[in-house]
Amino acid sequence: MSNEDDHPSREEITLGPVLAALADPHRRRVVATLVLAPDGTEIGCSSFGLPVTKATRTYHFRMLREAGLIGMVDYGNCRKTYLRRADIEAKFPGLLAWVVAEVEAASG
Amino acid sequence: MSNEDDHPSREEITLGPVLAALADPHRRRVVATLVLAPDGTEIGCSSFGLPVTKATRTYHFRMLREAGLIGMVDYGNCRKTYLRRADIEAKFPGLLAWVVAEVEAASG
Repeated sequence: MSNEDDHPSREEITLGPVLAALADPHRRRVVATLVLAPDGTEIGCSSFGLPVTKATRTYHFRMLREAGLIGMVDYGNCRKTYLRRADIEAKFPGLLAWVVAEVEAASG
Repeated sequence: MSNEDDHPSREEITLGPVLAALADPHRRRVVATLVLAPDGTEIGCSSFGLPVTKATRTYHFRMLREAGLIGMVDYGNCRKTYLRRADIEAKFPGLLAWVVAEVEAASG
């Protein structure tokens, strides 16, 4: 995978895939973690501590990437993910804050 | 079913069920139709023209109701649905407009 393949451009980001991606609580947790990190932070996909198999984890990150919520960078021996904060804020202002608020409320 | 049973209060409306309800394009179409109707409009569930079986339609409306997006009124021989516009706008301002914009873009 090259770094920019199958990342939708900002114009290609649409509501349906974003909502479908965020309909899952594991995926919302990934997004919330990235929102709370400093802008531009890259996190290894295995570092989020999702309680799922590797195949399921791959699926979750693909949903997020294809929706345009995250980008992924391939470092050869590992892949890291970053939040497309400016793109999502531009398209759906407030959405990322709702995700964080829900995750924070759930974790007490 | 009484009119107010299993309708979450505004405080009980949370992001997860709302996103899950809106992850489906048929359900977004129902919501968009209600958003575009005058405030307080009640529409019979069979009047939305969803291309699905009655059982599936019932499921879609249950997802929307339990998420707090719509309310339902039982008139004995028919059920009508209305948008919980003020509740959703208060919790997630802008969300309903995104749904309408997407449905309108898709329909030409």
